Amino acid sequence: MNVDSVRIVNIVESLLVSNDDAADVNRSRLEAAGVLTINLMSSPGAGKTSLILRTIESLGERARLGVIEGDIAGSIDTEKVLAGGASDAIQINTGGNCHLEANMVHRALDDLDLTGCDVLIIENVGNLVCPTHWALGEHLKLCLVGASEGHDKPIKYPNIFEVSDVIVLNKIDLIDYVDFDRAIFYDSIQALNPGVPIFEVSCRTGQGLDAWTNWLVEQLAPVRMEG
Amino acid sequence: MNVDSVRIVNIVESLLVSNDDAADVNRSRLEAAGVLTINLMSSPGAGKTSLILRTIESLGERARLGVIEGDIAGSIDTEKVLAGGASDAIQINTGGNCHLEANMVHRALDDLDLTGCDVLIIENVGNLVCPTHWALGEHLKLCLVGASEGHDKPIKYPNIFEVSDVIVLNKIDLIDYVDFDRAIFYDSIQALNPGVPIFEVSCRTGQGLDAWTNWLVEQLAPVRMEG
Repeated sequence: MNVDSVRIVNIVESLLVSNDDAADVNRSRLEAAGVLTINLMSSPGAGKTSLILRTIESLGERARLGVIEGDIAGSIDTEKVLAGGASDAIQINTGGNCHLEANMVHRALDDLDLTGCDVLIIENVGNLVCPTHWALGEHLKLCLVGASEGHDKPIKYPNIFEVSDVIVLNKIDLIDYVDFDRAIFYDSIQALNPGVPIFEVSCRTGQGLDAWTNWLVEQLAPVRMEG
Repeated sequence: MNVDSVRIVNIVESLLVSNDDAADVNRSRLEAAGVLTINLMSSPGAGKTSLILRTIESLGERARLGVIEGDIAGSIDTEKVLAGGASDAIQINTGGNCHLEANMVHRALDDLDLTGCDVLIIENVGNLVCPTHWALGEHLKLCLVGASEGHDKPIKYPNIFEVSDVIVLNKIDLIDYVDFDRAIFYDSIQALNPGVPIFEVSCRTGQGLDAWTNWLVEQLAPVRMEG
C-alpha cells in the first residue's frame, strides 16, 4: 500500500468542550452509523495492533473493522492495519499526550469512512493508567494484557481492570517461559470486576482468536438495532 | 520478613512547591548523603522489580542499594526488595497518579534510612510517557524495556528514549520467540539519543547483569566525592 496516503490527525490543542460531552457526541454519531466501538487499552507492547490484525482475520465476512490509531508519534500501525484489511483507518498523533481524549476521536471521525464498517477499534496510547479516565464515546472498554507483563498487573493497576467490559490475555504462547500464575491473575480480576469476560489468545500463533471474535459478533446486534 | 513492617507513604495531595524545586532539594539531600540516585522507568511488567533484585545480587559487596517503590496500589514490590537484600525500602502509593513527583519522593526520603546506602533506585509507576516529564532529584534516568514489548518502542515513545541516560533491554531470553529486530531497536535509539549506553539482560536467567552493574559502579565515584 501507499504509505503517503496515510491520513494523520495531529493534535495540537484541545477543543473547548468537556471530554464527556464530546464523548456523548461521538457515541451518538457512531450509533447512528450502527458501529460498535471499542476503546482498546493496554501497556506499550502488549500487542494491540496484533490483536486488531488477528481480529480482522478471524472476523472474516462476519463483520468489517475500522480503526483509529492513537500514538505519541509515528503511523506504522495505521499502515499495518490498512494493509491487513481494515475497512478504513486514521492515525492520531497526540504529540506527547499519554492518552486519547474524546475531542481527538471527534476530529478523527470527521475523516474516517464508516460506510461498511461494523466495528470500530480505537487503539489508545499504550498506558495502563491515564486512558481509563477519558471516555471516547466507546461502547466497550477492552483491557489487553500480555502474559509476559506478569500476573500481578491487576493488583498494581486495579482501575483499568475495574472499568473494563472485557479483558484479553495475549501472548499465552509465552506463558510457560514467564512464571505466569493464572490463579493469581484470574482471582485478582474476579475481586475487582466479578464476571467480566476474559479471553486468552496468542496473536503470534492465532490460538484463541475465534472465541474472542465469536463473543465480539454477539455484541454487534444491539448497536445494529440502534443504528 | 514481617510484611506488617512495610512502610507506605500514601499520597493524597501535592505540596505547594514546584516539582523542579522539590527535585533540587531531593538531589542536594541525596548528594549530601553520597547516594547515587536512579529514576527507573518502564512500561508495566517490563521487569523493574526483577532488575532491582538482580542488581542487588550482582552488586554484592561493591555497593548497597536502597529502594523507593512507586505504585498506584499495593506494596508487594517493597516486600520483595526488602526480602531480596535492599538496605532499606519505602513504598509510595500514588492513589491513581500515573507517575511519581518530586514531592512524593521528598516525603519518602523523610522515612528512608540512607545510612550505608550507595545507590538509591526509585522505581516509578509503569508508564512510558508521563514519568519523563517529572524530575525526582535523580542523577540518572534509566529506561527499561522488555524484548517482548517489541523493537518499535523507541519509534512510538521517543521522548523517554531521548531523555534517558542509560537503557536496559530485559527479557533477552525471550528474544527468539518474539520477532525482536535488534537493528531497528538500536538504530532508532541511536537516532534519538546518540551514544547512550544500552545493556542487554535477562533477569530471568541472570545473563548480562554483571556488565550492567560494572557500569553502575563506575558511576558511583563522582557522587561519593560530592557526598
